Amino acid sequence: MQSAAAPLSERQRRRQRQPPLLRRIEPLTTIIGIAVKLDYAMTGPAPVLMQIGAAEVDGQRIAGESLVATPEVSHAVPGHDGIGQRLWLEPETQFTVSYAATVAVDRTPAPLAALTADSLTALPGEVLEYLFPSRYCPVDTMHAAAVDMFGHLTGGAAVEAVRGWITTHLAYVPGASHGGTTALDTFHAREGVCRDYAHLLIALVRSLGIPARMVSAYSPDVDPQDFHALAQVWLAGDWHLVDATGMADPATTAIIGVGRDAADIAFLTIFGAATLNAQVVEVALVG
Amino acid sequence: MQSAAAPLSERQRRRQRQPPLLRRIEPLTTIIGIAVKLDYAMTGPAPVLMQIGAAEVDGQRIAGESLVATPEVSHAVPGHDGIGQRLWLEPETQFTVSYAATVAVDRTPAPLAALTADSLTALPGEVLEYLFPSRYCPVDTMHAAAVDMFGHLTGGAAVEAVRGWITTHLAYVPGASHGGTTALDTFHAREGVCRDYAHLLIALVRSLGIPARMVSAYSPDVDPQDFHALAQVWLAGDWHLVDATGMADPATTAIIGVGRDAADIAFLTIFGAATLNAQVVEVALVG
Amino acid sequence: MQSAAAPLSERQRRRQRQPPLLRRIEPLTTIIGIAVKLDYAMTGPAPVLMQIGAAEVDGQRIAGESLVATPEVSHAVPGHDGIGQRLWLEPETQFTVSYAATVAVDRTPAPLAALTADSLTALPGEVLEYLFPSRYCPVDTMHAAAVDMFGHLTGGAAVEAVRGWITTHLAYVPGASHGGTTALDTFHAREGVCRDYAHLLIALVRSLGIPARMVSAYSPDVDPQDFHALAQVWLAGDWHLVDATGMADPATTAIIGVGRDAADIAFLTIFGAATLNAQVVEVALVG
Amino acid sequence: MQSAAAPLSERQRRRQRQPPLLRRIEPLTTIIGIAVKLDYAMTGPAPVLMQIGAAEVDGQRIAGESLVATPEVSHAVPGHDGIGQRLWLEPETQFTVSYAATVAVDRTPAPLAALTADSLTALPGEVLEYLFPSRYCPVDTMHAAAVDMFGHLTGGAAVEAVRGWITTHLAYVPGASHGGTTALDTFHAREGVCRDYAHLLIALVRSLGIPARMVSAYSPDVDPQDFHALAQVWLAGDWHLVDATGMADPATTAIIGVGRDAADIAFLTIFGAATLNAQVVEVALVG
Repeated sequence: MQSAAAPLSERQRRRQRQPPLLRRIEPLTTIIGIAVKLDYAMTGPAPVLMQIGAAEVDGQRIAGESLVATPEVSHAVPGHDGIGQRLWLEPETQFTVSYAATVAVDRTPAPLAALTADSLTALPGEVLEYLFPSRYCPVDTMHAAAVDMFGHLTGGAAVEAVRGWITTHLAYVPGASHGGTTALDTFHAREGVCRDYAHLLIALVRSLGIPARMVSAYSPDVDPQDFHALAQVWLAGDWHLVDATGMADPATTAIIGVGRDAADIAFLTIFGAATLNAQVVEVALVG
Repeated sequence: MQSAAAPLSERQRRRQRQPPLLRRIEPLTTIIGIAVKLDYAMTGPAPVLMQIGAAEVDGQRIAGESLVATPEVSHAVPGHDGIGQRLWLEPETQFTVSYAATVAVDRTPAPLAALTADSLTALPGEVLEYLFPSRYCPVDTMHAAAVDMFGHLTGGAAVEAVRGWITTHLAYVPGASHGGTTALDTFHAREGVCRDYAHLLIALVRSLGIPARMVSAYSPDVDPQDFHALAQVWLAGDWHLVDATGMADPATTAIIGVGRDAADIAFLTIFGAATLNAQVVEVALVG
Repeated sequence: MQSAAAPLSERQRRRQRQPPLLRRIEPLTTIIGIAVKLDYAMTGPAPVLMQIGAAEVDGQRIAGESLVATPEVSHAVPGHDGIGQRLWLEPETQFTVSYAATVAVDRTPAPLAALTADSLTALPGEVLEYLFPSRYCPVDTMHAAAVDMFGHLTGGAAVEAVRGWITTHLAYVPGASHGGTTALDTFHAREGVCRDYAHLLIALVRSLGIPARMVSAYSPDVDPQDFHALAQVWLAGDWHLVDATGMADPATTAIIGVGRDAADIAFLTIFGAATLNAQVVEVALVG
Repeated sequence: MQSAAAPLSERQRRRQRQPPLLRRIEPLTTIIGIAVKLDYAMTGPAPVLMQIGAAEVDGQRIAGESLVATPEVSHAVPGHDGIGQRLWLEPETQFTVSYAATVAVDRTPAPLAALTADSLTALPGEVLEYLFPSRYCPVDTMHAAAVDMFGHLTGGAAVEAVRGWITTHLAYVPGASHGGTTALDTFHAREGVCRDYAHLLIALVRSLGIPARMVSAYSPDVDPQDFHALAQVWLAGDWHLVDATGMADPATTAIIGVGRDAADIAFLTIFGAATLNAQVVEVALVG
């Protein structure tokens, strides 16, 4: 993704050891083209943390990728849970980034409703944090309502019920939320954008004892095209993508990063002040 | 700590490779005795996640330890960031736990005010999450006030100023807060318990661009004796304990676990309902 | 209610002009006996605002009443909307209050479900505030969910649906809430006490365009016996009592005061610090 | 203000009895010209509640006034506390309003810092509600911080200190807040618009035991020109205007209405959905 030597997690090292040529593109594979341009003017020098590259994770493979940043990326660190990379820029007055990638996605969505939840005691240790309350998913305060509404269901059937409820009861309204909007706010507002749909699904699913995390991603049918956010739920021993907005088909979605909620998956975190000059995200099915 | 084979993180494995006999108890070392008894009646069968054992981390060594649980611990997983262990119990009607440990603490508190903050871009990847907002430390909403109050300071001097402000402006009032109390609530209430002091310090310090995390611990001067919570701040390339309540001296404090905030370091998480029969925590300097 | 000359509102004056002997106790009238004892120790001298007397309002008549306070009541002012009275005490170190009353209640509860809502434009000016958001009834944030849940209903049928939903989905749990708990919190917690039940009903009903206010009251079937809180909704040109807890029958309930929410109907507001020595509320049907 | 016969409060009636010709424009009087145009398209028929007319209150006199609305005003009711008027419109598809007024203001701002606070027990009954928490001024949660910051001061000196603190610590940033922003949010965000400045001042001042209410007003130096919000504090037996933004000089400010907070003084409350076509507010010193 870029030339700077970045420290890699053990998990990433294991992934890199896989001879990439072994994973040919299979007949079912979808090819996604991604192009991103960012152009921001800084109010003053400040570090900027960016996570915009498609990740090397199961179900998707980076076929080709380029990232040109001005100023250059000064340092890279692994993303949350070792998925994807976060890049540091240290702009003085402005920064521009061009990212392009071709990603082969080979992900057969499981029929969620048929999957069983793992018993809590069988969960891997690193999955437990995805049961707990987080900044925008206050499971502690939403638990009782979630159990009242969906507690008669378990596993994938519960997740499907939550997803269906959100799809039915929320309106997708750009501008309806703001940076501090939580899942609880969205539950009441009955409207939001992808971030809010994902937060609400995650908070309700966690409340039912099923781990759920936030995913940033590229997907061609997101309208208007932009960085997208959806959820992953842990069922039957693995993570499964779920998008309550219905816009991102797992079979054509390229994951960027994961985290507890929007606090962890920001595509840009500017430790200072900046103004947006231009931002373009284009995602298309190319094969 | 107990016999069940637990999956160990890479970090824990590295720690275990250190021949324990090499680390004799040095003249400066403090010996702490810990005794905990828990007795809870369950409303129905439910899994219980417990993190109460002193951790094997730099600055402290478990000299002796025993844990007897009824029912027996069914499974163990690493704690957050691979520090300490979380134990699963699966009680039907009741559970009782007796934990006893002798811990040698050899930790020379650094003069915080003299330490410099690492530049953000130099932070290890796994430390970044401790800059972000979390459930009880809503950095996003507290950032502007923190910068207004302490933004003229940097590094350890800023941490010391935050700690001093909290010590001066908060009253330690058992019962003043509840499970949903956030750092922002505490900022206004001007009172709380150890959990609240730690949350407020963490939220303010993170707002200043310095990583901070929550620590559960045993410490002999905590009054009344109980599980204790304090903070660690990342300065000059390492974590340093800070207790805004002033009750826990780092030199005599045994760390149990760490996390973003209280959501991660609960000593007990009961995935169901239970009532407390008895709970005793005793911590004493024994050498 | 007490001898100190209190300023009376125009509305109160009008009520006083009614020759009291004309309103005999009718066959259907219920007689309620009320006895209250308060005993508080002050941390220091501070004014105390108290509203505990049954009010002279339609549907109830004070047959007999005595109030003995130490120190004596220093001043009285009308309660919110001119209903009932607020009494000032100025204790130095302690205050004790004994209140006893016999109240004749002659209130035939209307069949709520059959009542129609007034058009908004027909509402009296002083009723409008009961449509707006208040401290514990944040109608602005709950509006969309309320409309989604109950928006297909109107008037008394909508109120009945809200009341039924609360009765079904909430558990009455003493200690479940605290002083800052809002209707939104209660919506999610699915538990609370009378104050919380009333707040939730008021917030949902206001969200549907029907005025609703909070009422403090005495009622004999409240268990455990205490000051009680319920709601009044404005339908068909008048206020109607509704109690989502089901404990207070309008036909046997004596109103103390009204207001937007708990902020307005506190039985005691201590502008300083005090500790409770004793507090007893006894309410009984005596005829 | 308009021809429809509106019910008048007792207070308004008393005001009307004053022979208007007795109050000539004195040498010190300021003449303010006000012109407002509103043009909204309705999503569907819905009642609209509007409060935009300058009020007949002490310190200002309506020299001339016209209001033309399409559709016509269907009904008028007194504003909160009997100050000003709320007008109902019942538009089907659109509404337009033109309001023009000439207001003579004769208000000598008192030197606030020199005024003493009334003892709580001496407050008129109808002023008490302005001590209590309200939707956007959660005095209950802000009380301790306010006392910690300003509790060493009393009366006008305390109000002046609060006003000065807000002026120094907040930045006036259009768009920084939203409809749900409370005084507590603003305290932390350290930025806002007139509504937020007023809420924060009111919440802090009430926390100190001094009644404070919200005022909607026209003032010529508000930049950009718009409906303005400021506060009134109760000192030395009367209400006094205070504007923490510094934009509205009491001597040139025409009061529209008052209330507990923004919930009570909305210039437009649309009980349905509408889109803004045009809105113009012009206020100028004309004499």
